[in-house]
Amino acid sequence: MKIPVVENILNANDQIAEANRADFEAAGVFVLNLMASPGAGKTSFILATLDRLSPQLRPGVIEGDLASRIDADTIGARGVPVVQINTGGGCHLDAPMIRTALPELPLAQLDLLFIENVGNLVCPANFALGADRAVVIASVPEGHDKPYKYPGIFASADVVILNKIDLLDVFNFDLDYFRRGLEMVNPDVPCFYLSCRTGAGMSEWVAWLLSQLPAIRPQTLNK
Amino acid sequence: MKIPVVENILNANDQIAEANRADFEAAGVFVLNLMASPGAGKTSFILATLDRLSPQLRPGVIEGDLASRIDADTIGARGVPVVQINTGGGCHLDAPMIRTALPELPLAQLDLLFIENVGNLVCPANFALGADRAVVIASVPEGHDKPYKYPGIFASADVVILNKIDLLDVFNFDLDYFRRGLEMVNPDVPCFYLSCRTGAGMSEWVAWLLSQLPAIRPQTLNK
Repeated sequence: MKIPVVENILNANDQIAEANRADFEAAGVFVLNLMASPGAGKTSFILATLDRLSPQLRPGVIEGDLASRIDADTIGARGVPVVQINTGGGCHLDAPMIRTALPELPLAQLDLLFIENVGNLVCPANFALGADRAVVIASVPEGHDKPYKYPGIFASADVVILNKIDLLDVFNFDLDYFRRGLEMVNPDVPCFYLSCRTGAGMSEWVAWLLSQLPAIRPQTLNK
Repeated sequence: MKIPVVENILNANDQIAEANRADFEAAGVFVLNLMASPGAGKTSFILATLDRLSPQLRPGVIEGDLASRIDADTIGARGVPVVQINTGGGCHLDAPMIRTALPELPLAQLDLLFIENVGNLVCPANFALGADRAVVIASVPEGHDKPYKYPGIFASADVVILNKIDLLDVFNFDLDYFRRGLEMVNPDVPCFYLSCRTGAGMSEWVAWLLSQLPAIRPQTLNK
């Protein structure tokens, strides 16, 4: 007797992620999946990026949290279309949650969609959402050993951000050690050192982001 | 036809947690389950606590990480019995992992066992290990909104630590807002503000910890 084997527990999620991806492509919206520890500065990073985008580029945001709408309120105050997903205790966003949120966004009128995942340096890496780029944000106060201790999520990144770079000295953060760990798990991944608070390094990140967009080029960068 | 229903997916874990708890009690060891975000300072907190314990009190440590033995090496350098558990990507410790690690520790010769969970402010709260106290460590750089955004783990805490208190001003951290959020999800939970780096607040925490131990009283505190 042949016993059927369920080959990949993520298949159902992956299939819906592909449907999301098709919808994003049809709408002409470029999508970032932002993953980080709690408090690494995901929302500040979205805001600091929004501040530096051309007014012609129309952004939207999906906020993922276990509970609360603190971040969605912050984003909404900027007049940016935003949807809050509360996972009700769940440790990551998944493709069906994104699918449920999409009708709440004016997708055809967006160019760039930020999806802020639940603060968690482990689980979000295992669930595709249909995004174009996986962005992993580390932050200086977390310490320079994170790529060694959380290799999975750093390996899954298309680009890595090191935030709160203005506090290197306060935390005795060893940049070389961090970078060696990152290169071990994800060689040649683009990495930007920046501070959302001071603005240091933001223009390099935004220039890279714009270079990834299919139709919009770095010259639309307005500051 | 009556269809059997699996009532609680955690039952298997809970049963093994109870076996762990029985072993801890038989060995006369008091056990802390330390839970926090990546980089909140769990290992520094263990070290700073060890520094302030009487030499008569014999500690041990179980280190949980997805990968690496960085923390175990740091603890081991102090001459403290330590076991490293690598979850191989798993987002939390569970009771069977602890059970597997126990034979590697001289349990009967320990008074106090620190279990450092995987850095994750969501999943560890759902898996009992058999510990006597759940310790949740928040840190100032993560921001004052964490109890609102991650209510589950703060609700599960027997005691809450706010670490890196020397950096309140650097991060514009609103202590009242943090405390209100904490009281909303876990009224009357003991909470200690401290800095492992400067030592501020450590003596209050250690006095409380010693007050929880069944046989050892605060007068054994040696500094």
